[in-house]
Parts: sequence; structure tokens; C-alpha cells
Amino acid sequence: MEMTTIIGILAGLAALVGGFLWEGGQINGLMQGAAALIVFGGTIAAVVISFPLARLKTIPKALRFAFTRQTDNTEQLIEDVVNMATTARRNGVLSLERMAVDHPNSFLREGMQMVVDGTDHELLRQIMELEIGAVEQKHESYAKIFESAGGYSPTMGIIGTVMGLIHVLGSLTEPTDLGPSIAVAFTATLYGVAAANIIFLPIASKIKSRSDDEIQNMELLLEGILAVQNGEHPNLVRKKLVSFTPAERYHAPAVKEGYHEHETAE
Amino acid sequence: MEMTTIIGILAGLAALVGGFLWEGGQINGLMQGAAALIVFGGTIAAVVISFPLARLKTIPKALRFAFTRQTDNTEQLIEDVVNMATTARRNGVLSLERMAVDHPNSFLREGMQMVVDGTDHELLRQIMELEIGAVEQKHESYAKIFESAGGYSPTMGIIGTVMGLIHVLGSLTEPTDLGPSIAVAFTATLYGVAAANIIFLPIASKIKSRSDDEIQNMELLLEGILAVQNGEHPNLVRKKLVSFTPAERYHAPAVKEGYHEHETAE
Amino acid sequence: MEMTTIIGILAGLAALVGGFLWEGGQINGLMQGAAALIVFGGTIAAVVISFPLARLKTIPKALRFAFTRQTDNTEQLIEDVVNMATTARRNGVLSLERMAVDHPNSFLREGMQMVVDGTDHELLRQIMELEIGAVEQKHESYAKIFESAGGYSPTMGIIGTVMGLIHVLGSLTEPTDLGPSIAVAFTATLYGVAAANIIFLPIASKIKSRSDDEIQNMELLLEGILAVQNGEHPNLVRKKLVSFTPAERYHAPAVKEGYHEHETAE
Amino acid sequence: MEMTTIIGILAGLAALVGGFLWEGGQINGLMQGAAALIVFGGTIAAVVISFPLARLKTIPKALRFAFTRQTDNTEQLIEDVVNMATTARRNGVLSLERMAVDHPNSFLREGMQMVVDGTDHELLRQIMELEIGAVEQKHESYAKIFESAGGYSPTMGIIGTVMGLIHVLGSLTEPTDLGPSIAVAFTATLYGVAAANIIFLPIASKIKSRSDDEIQNMELLLEGILAVQNGEHPNLVRKKLVSFTPAERYHAPAVKEGYHEHETAE
Amino acid sequence: MEMTTIIGILAGLAALVGGFLWEGGQINGLMQGAAALIVFGGTIAAVVISFPLARLKTIPKALRFAFTRQTDNTEQLIEDVVNMATTARRNGVLSLERMAVDHPNSFLREGMQMVVDGTDHELLRQIMELEIGAVEQKHESYAKIFESAGGYSPTMGIIGTVMGLIHVLGSLTEPTDLGPSIAVAFTATLYGVAAANIIFLPIASKIKSRSDDEIQNMELLLEGILAVQNGEHPNLVRKKLVSFTPAERYHAPAVKEGYHEHETAE
Repeated sequence: MEMTTIIGILAGLAALVGGFLWEGGQINGLMQGAAALIVFGGTIAAVVISFPLARLKTIPKALRFAFTRQTDNTEQLIEDVVNMATTARRNGVLSLERMAVDHPNSFLREGMQMVVDGTDHELLRQIMELEIGAVEQKHESYAKIFESAGGYSPTMGIIGTVMGLIHVLGSLTEPTDLGPSIAVAFTATLYGVAAANIIFLPIASKIKSRSDDEIQNMELLLEGILAVQNGEHPNLVRKKLVSFTPAERYHAPAVKEGYHEHETAE
Repeated sequence: MEMTTIIGILAGLAALVGGFLWEGGQINGLMQGAAALIVFGGTIAAVVISFPLARLKTIPKALRFAFTRQTDNTEQLIEDVVNMATTARRNGVLSLERMAVDHPNSFLREGMQMVVDGTDHELLRQIMELEIGAVEQKHESYAKIFESAGGYSPTMGIIGTVMGLIHVLGSLTEPTDLGPSIAVAFTATLYGVAAANIIFLPIASKIKSRSDDEIQNMELLLEGILAVQNGEHPNLVRKKLVSFTPAERYHAPAVKEGYHEHETAE
Repeated sequence: MEMTTIIGILAGLAALVGGFLWEGGQINGLMQGAAALIVFGGTIAAVVISFPLARLKTIPKALRFAFTRQTDNTEQLIEDVVNMATTARRNGVLSLERMAVDHPNSFLREGMQMVVDGTDHELLRQIMELEIGAVEQKHESYAKIFESAGGYSPTMGIIGTVMGLIHVLGSLTEPTDLGPSIAVAFTATLYGVAAANIIFLPIASKIKSRSDDEIQNMELLLEGILAVQNGEHPNLVRKKLVSFTPAERYHAPAVKEGYHEHETAE
Repeated sequence: MEMTTIIGILAGLAALVGGFLWEGGQINGLMQGAAALIVFGGTIAAVVISFPLARLKTIPKALRFAFTRQTDNTEQLIEDVVNMATTARRNGVLSLERMAVDHPNSFLREGMQMVVDGTDHELLRQIMELEIGAVEQKHESYAKIFESAGGYSPTMGIIGTVMGLIHVLGSLTEPTDLGPSIAVAFTATLYGVAAANIIFLPIASKIKSRSDDEIQNMELLLEGILAVQNGEHPNLVRKKLVSFTPAERYHAPAVKEGYHEHETAE
Repeated sequence: MEMTTIIGILAGLAALVGGFLWEGGQINGLMQGAAALIVFGGTIAAVVISFPLARLKTIPKALRFAFTRQTDNTEQLIEDVVNMATTARRNGVLSLERMAVDHPNSFLREGMQMVVDGTDHELLRQIMELEIGAVEQKHESYAKIFESAGGYSPTMGIIGTVMGLIHVLGSLTEPTDLGPSIAVAFTATLYGVAAANIIFLPIASKIKSRSDDEIQNMELLLEGILAVQNGEHPNLVRKKLVSFTPAERYHAPAVKEGYHEHETAE
């Protein structure tokens, strides 16, 4: 389980509160129930209005995706597909069934199962591309919820501060009280901006980054599955898949020179 | 009828007003007729200028779409299309007429009617894609109206506050009056920002979310209708349609193993 | 002539000024020549720099488009094209010349003239698509001018206010004069934000909405003209064109059942 | 030489300074060396970091493009291409060499030279499309530099003002000095916002407008050159090219009726 | 090694600090540990949350790319490809191996190696396009990290300032202390805005500019490698490649007139 999301949030809060205490501030000066009600209540309400119930129900899944999901190792996936390509060429595609059924990646597993079932090439591509599109859309809809929360919460902070100022200035009798009251009003801005920039927006960004990685892996697997179905040479499969990964391509196990001759000789 | 839109708006207003009262504010400090005239009058005027009359007349429909429209259940639609595929293969496409005529989804109904009428495959696709595009455009135009209101209202709030400050500062005689007068001026900002973030922008967002769901269903139905017209095997129809829905695909009723053999044996 | 643009602008100004007077402000407090010079002079200058002379000369046309242009009635256009399709099938395309020459829509007129002239199908499509693209680009360039004015004017307002504050604070001798002087400085912000949100941005938005409607009609006409040239059945032409208009499709005159039989029987 | 860029900048500065003087401000109140160093030094530094040296060296060319470049007259270009089409049909493409070699437009000249050289149709299109793409990219990179300067300069103004306030407030001993010092601090904001909105952003916008016009002409010429190579009838060439220009198409010299008959009779 | 990035950052800091000192500020007024903790701690935390660990680990590479990477000279690359085209036509593609193996550009080297290996034309294009896409994506992901830091740091500055104001105003006892304390609070805004505009955003922009140049070179090389594989005439190869570079095309070594005759005569 990758812990950077939770570590980052704790570190961010520690930096802000630590800086405040270092300046000599008192922690209870940051605790204002009314400001919290306005900012978090308002943000939650705006998010509830913004999305249908069915989407709101995916928030726990979205959080799990952001906090714990680990993307498969791309190099391992390439090796697995290359191994399947070798097996398929040696023993035929039916021999893939045993290898595929145990694979931890469900997209690869399902795709190889369709190869074993003898699904038509174009249909296989079409179904797997639809699945990639559907996964991409699901992740985007996860990220949009947090992005919209990150958009609403600072404005709710401004609303809270303006309401605080209206209250303070409207009932002003003793100018010396002005300072502390304005301090209280500013807490709402603090809550709204901090929640957006330490929690909502970074989580949306993490979801999008992880989605990018996962979609890239799925596209790589799709290319690999189709190549296995076509019975392409394992070296060629590796070469194609390695092209998806810029960093890898200089360190990939050297393709045997002259394999094209072997290829054409077969 | 899904109630989240109306519940969200009420909850949002409750959070803001509740926070204000908790701080000790008085509710009549938030009621300023002049600020309301500037913010809401100005926003309505800006929206009226921004769109032709014919679009403005769609606002009630847009509100109904945002507040009450419920998207069809995708799983049920898939089942219905699979049933139609089974019927069509067994009894021919003409037998679909009775099933289609009673279906609550008008897009499916109309599409199946065209299949029954023997409409040409490419023409059927073209007409249904035009309809999907037209529905998408209609929803976008609904959302745009609320988005533009959500863009204008905070600036109208700023205009109201600046006008209030001009009035207050321009006729300043007694500094002790300054506070309450500025409080009044800030009310316009409050109205503008709150209306945008509790009402206009979340409604625009809800319209877009519902449109996404509906368009996705229409695309799924289009694929299904074309598959039925082609006389594809119900299992294959289900497999295709299920690919549109990422969550479903792991729980879908297991496709009978070896159906491809049956398929090719037919 | 649709009056919503001019009515909207007057209503918007009335709401702002009315709110100001209601609060007890005096109208001459809003009249500041220097602020007007900075905001409107600066905005005009920025727009002049931003666009070549040839584009600036289209501003009167753009205003006419925003204030008075009325889009053709889509349903009437569909009926006219269907009538032409009927005539063309009965009497040949040459008989269209008399119908086309009087039609108020110049795009339809010109397209049908090309059909009568026997222009090649692909060439006809290519020329008419180029024209649609050119009209779209012309409208976009109209809208861009007002959008850029709406972007510059609030910043010119800020410049005016900052310059006012520099003047006021720089020569501060009597603190009691501060209030009225700052009020004067704020007028520039008021001018800039109000001009952008009551005039420039809504006009840009109106131009874009009208352009959308007009382009949609042109695309519908293009499809209709090509269908007439192909000699398609009037019922089919109507069905295609109606697909462009989501609201219409449920109320369109019922397509005679069984027309496909007639069609194939011909 | 079109002078609107330089005239606009001078007019914009005159409007701002004029408004300031009208209010009774003193011109030396606007002259602050330190603010200028922060805003312009900071903006130049940020631009230098943002772009590789090779791009920075194109700034003089970009300025020349924005200040003096005049786009070719589209109608004249159409006439020239139509004349070439007539010559080519009458005397063969080799006769174009003399006409092309003297043409002021280098893109047309070069394209016609390739026609004379007998370059293959698809290769000609490919090479000319690559050139259009390269010119478009060059103009975009010109505009990006000024856009980024227009993005940095207001934030440098804010930095300057904040630094001024830190200095003023940090060493505050005599409250009566506060006003003039804050006035000085605000000068940085004034510089940053004014430079962005009177100089940087409008120049970027002008570059993009001119680029649009030039690219549109190049696309029109490309279509014309290919039509000449194909030996198309001059009337048809004119009809095609006129479709690129919405305003022209209603005033274009009337195409002789019945030219298609002549056409097919040839 | 191109030094503009580091020079720009130093010059930017010098301009800001120089302006501050010129105004009479004291350098230690700008040094606030608590503000630095809030702004930089908060920004780092937000970036850590926003990206998976694997992406964060690429930051050193991204910095190296922004600070030291020099793009290959395009004209030199064109000459090299043209030379290879000449060699390949004279001595066959196998003779390219010796030329390719020593070339400093790894993309050209690898592509020519694949030509020598006799890789299929379409497969070669597909693999090299995948590599270009992968490099583009890598650079984008570099830039995104700095862009997101540049987005978070000003808001962290605002958070720091608001926290400072809460502390100051909340414990206000002596109004004369207000000024220096607010000055301290503003330091956070200064840090956040300056870091974003002198460091984070310009570095992101530099990465994108360099990526554009590099991708353009790769696309040019891809076209060149495919042309060499096709055995195209060196003059034609040069003409194609030169079309990628707008500035060059007027100064390119003149293509011998009449080469098409030679070409077809071969």
C-alpha cells in the first residue's frame, strides 16, 4: 500500500499548524465551529447538488483509489505478456488459459480468456477499447467530485468571512473589539483555502495521475493481447510494448540481433 | 423522483445561515433589498442579454431536468436489449414491434421501431447519432445558462459592494457609522457568491452529470439496437453492452463458456 | 426584430442604479469623467492594439448581429426543404430553380442553385462546408472582440482605482478627506466591472448563441440539399432533418407507416 | 505599414495618464524606479527562464510581425490564382513559371514553382501542409512569449506591492507617513497590470489575429495551387476560393450561368 | 550547457531584492522562518499528495532537463539524414549501420538500426510513433509537477498570511504593534507568489518549450528515417525535412533545378 497520500496530508497540516505555532499563535485561535459549519457544510451541500446520488455513492471507492491503490508494475506486465506470447507460439493459444486464469491483472486475464475463447480480432479490440474508455470515464468522474469540492470550498470560505465581517461590522460598538472578531471571520477563509489545497485538489490530482498510469498499462496490455492473438514473435511483442515506456527503452534486454532473419525463416 | 438537488440547496442555505446565527449574527442583518436588486436584477439582465429568447424559454425544462429527472437504470436497459436480441433471433425482427411499443425509453422504442420498419443499417446509425448529438447539445445549452448565471452573479455582488462603498465613503461624516454601512455593502458580495456556489454552478454541474449518464445510456442503446438489427447472438450483445459499464463487468451473469462454438455451429 | 439584447442592457443598468439610489446614494456620485476616460479609453486602446484594422471595422456588423439578427425558424426550413424534395422527385431538379430563387435563406438558395446547375455531389458538399466554416469563423471573430473588451475593462477599472489611490494616499494631508477620495477611486472599478458584465461579455455570449443556432441550421440545410440532390424520398428527408432538432422530433408530423414498402416499390 | 499597434499603445498610455492628471494627480507620483525594477526586471527574468535562448532571440521578429506586418489582400490573391488557372489551361503549366517568379507572396511563388517542376500532387500537398503547420507554430511561439509576459507582470506587480507594504508596515513609526508610502507600494501593481493590459496581452492577441489571417490565406492558396495543378476550370477555382471568405461570396463576380455545360462540352 | 534557466532565476531574485533594498527595506525583514515553513512545507506536501511516488522520483531528471538539456541543432540533423539518404541510395541500407551507430541522437540511431535490420515499414512507423508519444508524455508529466507546485504555492502564501492575520488580530492589545505584525504576515504571500512566478511556473514553461523543440525534431527524424527506408532521392528528403522549419526554408541550399527529370530518368 502506497502511503504518500496520507503522509502528504499529515505533513501539510503539520507544516501549516507548525508555522502558526512558531509565530506564537495559539491553537484554539484556529478552532471555530461556526466557520467549520459554513465551509464544510456549504461545500458538502454544493457537492451534493452537483452530482446525482449514484455518483456520490462512489466517493468511498474514489478515496480508496486515491489512498491505497497501487498500479501494476509495467515492466512485470511486459514480461508476463512476452511469456504468454512465447507459450502461445509454442503450444497454441489454448495453452494460455492456465497462465491467464491466475494473473492478478483482471484486464489481462479477461483479454487472454477472450483470446482462448477464439473471439474475433476486431471484436476483441472493440470490447477492450470500450472497457478502457469506461475505466477512464469512471476515474474522471472520481476526480471531478474532488475537483468540484476544491472549487467550492474556498468560495465557501469567502462566504464565511464575509458573513463574519457583516456580523462584526454591523454590530460594532467598541472599535478595540474589532481585531479579534475579524480574526474569527478570517478562520473561514483559512479553512476553505486549506481544505482545497491540502485535501481536495491534491486528491483529485492523485486520482488523475493514477488513472493515467493505469490507462497506459491497459493500452499496453491491449496491444500485447492483440499481438499474442496474432501469434507475433515474442521479441517483436517486447519491442512494441517497450515503446510505451520511455525510460525503459534504453535498458530493455537487448533484442537478439538478426531476429528478423529468424522471423522470416520460420 | 430524486430529491438531492432540492435537499442540497436547503442544506447549503441552512449551513450558511446556521453558521451566521451561531456566531451571534442577527438574521435581519442579512436582508438587504437594495443588494438583492443589484445582484439578482443584474444577473438576470446579463443572462437575458447573453441568450436568445428561444433559449431563455427552456429554463423551466432545464430546472425540471436538474431537479427531478431520473436516468434509466443501465442494467435494466441492458437486460431489455438482450431480451429483444433473443426475441429477434427466435422470431424475427418483426416480433420486436410489440416489445418496443411499450418500452418507457423513447430512444430505444424509436430505434427498435426503425429496425422493425427495415430501415437501412447505415441510415439507422446516422439518424440515431444525429439524435444523440442533438440531445447532447440541448443539455449543454441548459447547463450553459446556469453556468453563465454563476459567472455573472459574483461580479454583480462585487458591483453592489463597490457601489455601497462609494455611497458610504462619499458621504462619510461620522466615522463611527462606517462599520454598519460597510456591513450592508458586503451583503451584495455575500448574495452574489452564495447564489453562484449554492444554486447556479451546482445546478449547471448536475445538469452536466445527468446528461453524461443519459448520453452514455443512449450510446449503449445505439450499439445494442444495431447489434439486434444485425442478428447478433444475445450473449455477444450483452458482452458488448456490459463493456460500457466498468462497475458491472465483474458481476455480470457469467457468459456461458464455449458459446463461440455454439455461435459458429449455428 | 428581437429586442432582448437592448432590453437586457437597459434592465441591467436600471437594476444597478436603482439599487444604488434605494440605498440612498446620489446619482452624481457615480459620474466621474476621469474614471470613464481611464476605463473606456484604456479598453478601447487595448482592443485597437489587439486586432488588425480590418477586424475592427466589422464591429458595427457584429453589433447588428447581436442586437437585431433573427435566426430562421428551423421548422419552416425543414418544411421548405421537404417541399423541394417532393418537387424534385416529381418534376426533376430543374424545377427547383423557381422555388429556390425566391427563398429568403441565401444559403439554401445558393445550394439549390448549385443542385440545379448540376454541380458534382462531392464538390457541392465541399463548397458548402467551406462556407459554413467561413461563417463560423466570422462569428467567432465578432465574439472575440467583445470577449477581449470584457477581459480588459475590469483590469482597466483596477488600474483606475489604483491610480486614484496613489493620488489620494500620496497627497494625504487631512484624514477626513480620505473617504470621499477613495469613493471616487472606486468608481473606476465599478465602471470596468459593470461594463464587462452588463455589456461586453453578454454581447459576446449572445453572438455565440446566435451563431450556434445559425450554424446548426446551415448544417441541417446542407444535409437537406444533398438529400434533395440524391433524389431521396421526402419522408426520409424529413426524418433526417428532424433528427437535428431534439425538441421537434416527438411532435413531427407522423411519418406514414409502411413508407419503406412504398419506397422499395417505386 | 499598418500603424494601429503603435497608435493603440500610445492612446492607451495617454488615456491612463490623462485620467490621472485630470483627477489632479502629479506625474512624478507615478515614477518609481524601485517598482519598475521589480516589475520589469522580474517579468524579464521570468520570461528568460520560461523559454530557451533560441526562442528569446525571435522576439524582435515577433515585434516586427505585430507592429508592421500587413497581410496580403485576399481578393487580390484569388484573382491572381484564377489568372494562373486560366493561363495554365490555355498554355500549360510550364507557362506559369514567368507569372509565379514575380509574385510577392512567397508561398504562392514556391507552390507554383513546384507545379511547374512537375512535383507529384500528393507530395506537393504534403510539403505545403507541413509549411503551413510550421508557420502556424512559429506564430504561436511568438504569441506565447508575450502571453507569458502578460501573465507574469501583474504578479510581479503584486510582489512589488507586497514588498512595499512589508517595508512600510515593518518600519512604521509615524502613522501619518503611512499614506504616501502605501501610494508608492501601489505603483508596482499599477505598472504590472498596465504593462500586461496595454502592451503584452494586446500584442499577443494581435499576433494571433494576424496569424489567423495569414494561415487562412495560405490554406486558400494551397487549395488554389492544387486546383491549378489539376487543370480545373477558372470559374470553379474562383468558386472554391471564394467559399473561404464569407463577406466576399455575395459580391463575387457572377459565375457565368451554364458554365457546367461549357465545362462538360470541352 | 545552456545557462538561461539558472541565470534567469538569479536575475529575477536580484531584481526583487534589489528593488526592495532600493526602497530602503532591510533584508532581514524578508526572512521569516514560519512563513517559509508554511509556504514551502505546504507546497511540498500538496505536491506529494498530488502525484504517485514513481512520478515524484522523476523530479531530479525534470530539473536536469530544465536546467541543462540542449536540443540538437535541427539543421545539423537534416544534413545528417540527407547524408544517410545519399549513402543508402549509393551503397544500400546496410551501409548505414556504420554511420548510425556513432550518431549522438539516440532516436535517429535506433531508427536507422531498425532500417538496417530490415524492419517492416509500417511497424517501424508504429514503433517510432509510440516512442515519440511516450517521450511527449514523459515531458508533460515533468511539467505538470512544476505547474502544480506553481498553483499551490501562492495559495499556501495566502494561507500563511491569513494565519498570520488571525494570530495578530486575535491577540491585539497595542494598535501600534499592528503594522510590523502585518508586515510579517505578508511575507508568506510574498514567498508564495515569488516562488511560483520566479521558479515553479517558468521552469514548467521551459520544460514545455524544450519538449516542443525535441518532439518536433523527433517528428522530423521519423519522416527522414522513413524516407531513407523508401530510398527517396536526397534532394526530396531535404525538401520534406526543411518544410518542418519555417525559418530555414528560404535559406536552404537551393535544390538543383530539374532534379525531377533526373529522378524520373533513374
